[in-house]
Amino acid sequence: MQQIFWPDSLRGQTHLTLAGNEFQHLIKVLRLKINDRFWIVDHEKQTYQAQIQSVGRQDFTVQLVPQLRIHSELPNSVKIACALSKKDKVEWITQKATELGVTEIIFFKSHYAVKKWDSAQVSKKVTRLQQIALHAAQQSWRLQVPQVRYAASLAQVLATAAADYRLVAYEEAAKNNEQAQLAQICQQMQPQQSLLAFFGPEGGFTVEEINQMRQNGCIVCGLGPRILRAETAPLYFLSAVSYQTELSKDF
Amino acid sequence: MQQIFWPDSLRGQTHLTLAGNEFQHLIKVLRLKINDRFWIVDHEKQTYQAQIQSVGRQDFTVQLVPQLRIHSELPNSVKIACALSKKDKVEWITQKATELGVTEIIFFKSHYAVKKWDSAQVSKKVTRLQQIALHAAQQSWRLQVPQVRYAASLAQVLATAAADYRLVAYEEAAKNNEQAQLAQICQQMQPQQSLLAFFGPEGGFTVEEINQMRQNGCIVCGLGPRILRAETAPLYFLSAVSYQTELSKDF
Repeated sequence: MQQIFWPDSLRGQTHLTLAGNEFQHLIKVLRLKINDRFWIVDHEKQTYQAQIQSVGRQDFTVQLVPQLRIHSELPNSVKIACALSKKDKVEWITQKATELGVTEIIFFKSHYAVKKWDSAQVSKKVTRLQQIALHAAQQSWRLQVPQVRYAASLAQVLATAAADYRLVAYEEAAKNNEQAQLAQICQQMQPQQSLLAFFGPEGGFTVEEINQMRQNGCIVCGLGPRILRAETAPLYFLSAVSYQTELSKDF
Repeated sequence: MQQIFWPDSLRGQTHLTLAGNEFQHLIKVLRLKINDRFWIVDHEKQTYQAQIQSVGRQDFTVQLVPQLRIHSELPNSVKIACALSKKDKVEWITQKATELGVTEIIFFKSHYAVKKWDSAQVSKKVTRLQQIALHAAQQSWRLQVPQVRYAASLAQVLATAAADYRLVAYEEAAKNNEQAQLAQICQQMQPQQSLLAFFGPEGGFTVEEINQMRQNGCIVCGLGPRILRAETAPLYFLSAVSYQTELSKDF
């Protein structure tokens, strides 16, 4: 069943008229009809069943019924900071990380990142990625849309991305069989605490960058004994956090 | 550092001459030179440092030194059976699942799978996917290359893919907040035991298919509260198994 986000609270409302993008998407593209239903998640993360009552030329009305649905957000705010990688990996990462529950995605220029976005490009690229995050959040039945942004340097990410725990996934740590940090942090993390993890580009992080992150409170961790590609590592991380905090919680 | 697989045992050998594909890849394409090193993993999963001694017109010789490296295979044999999905998702799944440690990948035709491979296509497609698995295994520094194969039906997979534990990732279970089975199985699984998980296509599995799998000993499980795409679900599963069996083992 389709889902859309609504930018306001729908508390107490029994009907809603939708136009613009929602009309275009649900009526014109998906061809939903009278009596068809879809989910609306409002700005308070409340879920409503919307049933189409009437369809006009440019808008349509729905009846709204608040309806509980399983809570589809991670217990913690989990953010990823990914150095820019090749080709369209940023789109893949944005889509998949959104499915996996990420709260915020920050793409940034690191030493070995082959790409950087000049200021003319940033706005257009971030807008496109934010759209990808929106669609993925709708399809995954999330209760919020992750924020996507760009930072011109590692230092800028360190200065602006706050979190209770900060990790850096470092290939050298994996080669040295570092296997405990991620699990320790995931297990000690309390609900409402936040976690930020840094991921390098195809060429990895420099030793200087690792030191810079360490000096800013980042803990170096491995993600298992196999070398993971730049776009796979964040997905492993998010899956592991979900497994620990959502599936293993009673053990 | 590059890695290649060698199809025989190299036990006791101090030198090796390589030609054919290895010469083409390492000397012609990657332009490795005298004194450059790379890893060789032999058929017994032993790791050797190979250092180039001389380069001829069609072959080259290396000195071999056995060298320990962290064990990069999952403690269990973990297989995934994925219903055929759209476009080039099968290539993406093959590559990423290999990075994440999978032992065997079986693509099969399910009810809602939009594609099937006719017998003329199967051989060519499987060969291509096996190559993708080989390259991903080399890049991830795995000790073995996953097997990739095709089955014409769910029944065929059930009849031919043996495992100590068999799971099916079912969206309906997730919507009903099934959150315990995957963790329970991952925690009770002993080393050397095997695990097989089924993943549906974009349209999901039919109720009949789920029943068929249940009757064949498959346990239905959720993969967290968010809906995952057909190509994301197997990666979540493999990451979760790695996290449980490789990173959480001391807790």
